[in-house]
Amino acid sequence: MDKASLTDIIKSAKGEEKADLVIKNCHVVNVFSSQIIKADIAIRDGVIAGIGSYSGKSEIDAAGAYAIPGLIESHIHIESSFVTPEEFGRMAVPLGTTTVIADPHEITNVCGLKGFFYMMEAAKNTALDIKFMVPSCVPATPFEDSGAVLNSEEIEKVINNPDVLGLGELMNYPGVLNCDDEVLNKILLAKKYNKIIDGHAPGVVGLDRQAYISCGVKTDHECSTIQEMQESLQNGMYVELRDGSACHDLENLIPGITKENSRRLLLCSDDRQPVTFHIKGDINNHLKLCVSKGIDPITAIQMGSLNAAECYRLYDRGALAPGLRADIVLVGDLKNFEAKKVFIQGELVAEDGKYLKEVKRASISDVSGSVKVAGFSRERLTVHLADKKSKCRVHVIEISPGSIVTKNSIEEVTTDEEGNFLHDPEKDISKIAVIERHHKSGNIGLGLLKNYGIKDGAIAITIAHDSHNIICVGTDDAQMETAVKALIEQKGGIVLVSKNKVIERLELPVAGLMSDRDADWVQEKLAKINQAAFEILGINREIEPVSTLCFMALPVIPEIKITDKGLFDVKEFKFIDILD
Amino acid sequence: MDKASLTDIIKSAKGEEKADLVIKNCHVVNVFSSQIIKADIAIRDGVIAGIGSYSGKSEIDAAGAYAIPGLIESHIHIESSFVTPEEFGRMAVPLGTTTVIADPHEITNVCGLKGFFYMMEAAKNTALDIKFMVPSCVPATPFEDSGAVLNSEEIEKVINNPDVLGLGELMNYPGVLNCDDEVLNKILLAKKYNKIIDGHAPGVVGLDRQAYISCGVKTDHECSTIQEMQESLQNGMYVELRDGSACHDLENLIPGITKENSRRLLLCSDDRQPVTFHIKGDINNHLKLCVSKGIDPITAIQMGSLNAAECYRLYDRGALAPGLRADIVLVGDLKNFEAKKVFIQGELVAEDGKYLKEVKRASISDVSGSVKVAGFSRERLTVHLADKKSKCRVHVIEISPGSIVTKNSIEEVTTDEEGNFLHDPEKDISKIAVIERHHKSGNIGLGLLKNYGIKDGAIAITIAHDSHNIICVGTDDAQMETAVKALIEQKGGIVLVSKNKVIERLELPVAGLMSDRDADWVQEKLAKINQAAFEILGINREIEPVSTLCFMALPVIPEIKITDKGLFDVKEFKFIDILD
Repeated sequence: MDKASLTDIIKSAKGEEKADLVIKNCHVVNVFSSQIIKADIAIRDGVIAGIGSYSGKSEIDAAGAYAIPGLIESHIHIESSFVTPEEFGRMAVPLGTTTVIADPHEITNVCGLKGFFYMMEAAKNTALDIKFMVPSCVPATPFEDSGAVLNSEEIEKVINNPDVLGLGELMNYPGVLNCDDEVLNKILLAKKYNKIIDGHAPGVVGLDRQAYISCGVKTDHECSTIQEMQESLQNGMYVELRDGSACHDLENLIPGITKENSRRLLLCSDDRQPVTFHIKGDINNHLKLCVSKGIDPITAIQMGSLNAAECYRLYDRGALAPGLRADIVLVGDLKNFEAKKVFIQGELVAEDGKYLKEVKRASISDVSGSVKVAGFSRERLTVHLADKKSKCRVHVIEISPGSIVTKNSIEEVTTDEEGNFLHDPEKDISKIAVIERHHKSGNIGLGLLKNYGIKDGAIAITIAHDSHNIICVGTDDAQMETAVKALIEQKGGIVLVSKNKVIERLELPVAGLMSDRDADWVQEKLAKINQAAFEILGINREIEPVSTLCFMALPVIPEIKITDKGLFDVKEFKFIDILD
Repeated sequence: MDKASLTDIIKSAKGEEKADLVIKNCHVVNVFSSQIIKADIAIRDGVIAGIGSYSGKSEIDAAGAYAIPGLIESHIHIESSFVTPEEFGRMAVPLGTTTVIADPHEITNVCGLKGFFYMMEAAKNTALDIKFMVPSCVPATPFEDSGAVLNSEEIEKVINNPDVLGLGELMNYPGVLNCDDEVLNKILLAKKYNKIIDGHAPGVVGLDRQAYISCGVKTDHECSTIQEMQESLQNGMYVELRDGSACHDLENLIPGITKENSRRLLLCSDDRQPVTFHIKGDINNHLKLCVSKGIDPITAIQMGSLNAAECYRLYDRGALAPGLRADIVLVGDLKNFEAKKVFIQGELVAEDGKYLKEVKRASISDVSGSVKVAGFSRERLTVHLADKKSKCRVHVIEISPGSIVTKNSIEEVTTDEEGNFLHDPEKDISKIAVIERHHKSGNIGLGLLKNYGIKDGAIAITIAHDSHNIICVGTDDAQMETAVKALIEQKGGIVLVSKNKVIERLELPVAGLMSDRDADWVQEKLAKINQAAFEILGINREIEPVSTLCFMALPVIPEIKITDKGLFDVKEFKFIDILD
């Protein structure tokens, strides 16, 4: 802020000069005093100058609408929305979200710091204020090949940027507990630059949890039970109550919200797909859910504003008071929280659910062309089990519908004459391959998948947490090859193949993770893909065809997973053979 | 923190290595969850590693005592205790105070940045963690001569120090409202370095208050009514509930504390003299008072710990949890809050009311010899009212017992044969002089004081808020001269003269504000001075003899005051003649 602005603000606050904009006749929700006060909000140079009775060069009549602070998303992976930050902003802002804390570890796993910088550049093109956490675990584990490595030297290049609030979710809790050198280096960087550290340690309890927190980890978005929530709260963490496209913990945690602990509670999505924005909303839907379950509306609003601003040290926002950013949402009631008007830094940026600004996009040249595969051929998909036609006992990755936890099951399968795995239409066991796609290493990990349901065809995707190599599942090698080759050619995304022809596709040219098109188009494509997946490929209707595959390569989630390096037994913590 | 420490802490938290110290069998007060949990506290390298069941190389049995976070004083002028920071720490720490936020504007008014640096140096010699605010208003007003000027350039030299938390109480609210250039420069510095701004604007209401706050002022310690408290809270300020030696607002404000607003409330003293430490205590006494009036103990504790840490961005303290500083107080109960043991960064620093560390003092060479007067003589104390013996109508500064507000009264006084003011034993009107003592300017401001009560003698002091020139009151010029000369010779403090001889004195060689001796000695001296003031000099028993004079030169407090530049009419905002 410069002196001219400061002078403007003081003069407008005093009523000596007109404000730029006055939002008249609001019911102003005060998150400090938990009161609702009928007043005007005077705005000058993007800042709230005063709340009271004011005149402005421009005036908007709120006609009694409730004015609440711009809502703050405390933890989100924008890439999981399949759209770029500009488009993400276009979806979120009309719902009243004005600030998000984004952890771009997906794109950073693919493109390294180039991906991180792309996200920061794209963020400038949206009114949504996107703050970033530097991903702390790239790669996620040593059992897979990601596109990049973000070591502490790399992290130090970005962590002191004013839009970078700290170290992203510290998923490598074994590394913390074992005092792994690079993990400690990263933690010390956060301390050095006085930044915060996000946590991620589901299931870590007791003394181990204390040890994890003792490093300075400040937030926890993985609580699914009230007991976990209370344990994290007691130990000094802010708990981010999650409700997104994949996980819906908030509802179960609401009974644990009290007057005493609510100040340490925030709201987050973790991931949010276009259809979820469309049908449910965003953080405003968290508020709606809380209030519907009996939480005081202002307590709910605090969780989505003041508490997040305090946690993430965003001192210029989180409330409606003189001197703070004019991030203001007008809602009709404190029950549905439907945003009628949204202001960011005093500018009207959305009205009646529509984003008002032009969506200009940053160049994606640094982050496209990210699918680089060598040494791939149909022959390399062969799963060789015996020397001749046999019945073999094999490890299969058994899907549990509704969960990302898989079961390491033993099944009997029959091979072809050469002793290679052959898909049996009577058995729901299909082939799964993870194909390295960042450095042309030629790595392919092969495994067998049970319960996916695919009857005939193949599906290939470049979203595979966290390394985002290619995952392909199919009933025969020819169709798998077709799918993979089409995926490479379109530079990433999702491809469905039936009768050896591509029948549906979603191009995700931005790092193989995000589309460069609008969310409605993406949502429609995803719907078509799901429909084709069920109706044509015959995939199990109890699961999400794409999301399920996204988590098959995540070697930190038990019991058995597959990476480009092979089949991984999570419980035993080692690679294993398909043969039992 | 370095890697070795971080490793130690993790290993101790896990229970893999012994902690340095375990405080066993505590009732741990958790300010995050508002619970009390029976547990051990494990400490390693000055940090709480874990709370649970632990073994230590050293163990202390708390035997069921309550463990609360080290208490935080949110606003204090150490100089007003008459002792140096080292000695202040010796008084405060055994009472459970482990962190103070000090605003050293008294010594900075006398010695400039040298005084500020002295305070920071002295602070290193006490276990008490003293954080500083840079004084924002030195000099306090243009109507007096202070020892130094702290402009924005000077402020920028210190404000980014890690032990400097922000800009001290912004008393010059007219300067803010008038957008005074230097005032705005200072505010912009706080914004530039992301530091906080303390407020001070009693009686500023309505739009002016909004304008004042719109600059980013974050705290208010001047609330005396619940309505003021609520207005400040609504506008986003943290309210510091004050109870010190001079002001006792806390008791009146307690009824305004609610579950909804308590998170924005802190505790402060503003000033605290040795006798107050001795008889009442420190912040622990705030807790005792709150609880006695029905406030939940943990809510009270939060106000004295977590809330202050949040407000002042001290992320490493304010609670008992893994990763935070081991600033821990063991108390017998949550009613009296008597500290049995006090730990700072894991070290036992006080036990049963006794400070355990040696009190080594920083050199005072930079801040002594601060009384520099030129051009002083008995003749210059003459108040010339007429050419011959007359009755004259004059403005007198009328003292209101119990208040620092004075009344501009008109009285009739009789002169001597030369027309000079003559003390009349039948009237309680004495002469008051303010003598410039920083730059040998020779300035002397003269006035008449009513209700002080002095019958025969003189008193001279070098504590005169905020410029700390010499104030002298007496019944005749000879005794006033004796007092002033003795004060100059002893390099500042307090001198009482009776029958033209010095009968009591307190040397305050540190800037003329603080003693370099211990608090008990100072307390005893002050008691003797008060006794002599009442019994020998005959001063009005309804007032505090020394404190009353300390505020006679404060030209921002109505109605009439005196500075080295003359008699000042606060309401009319100008200098006036003694003659009506």
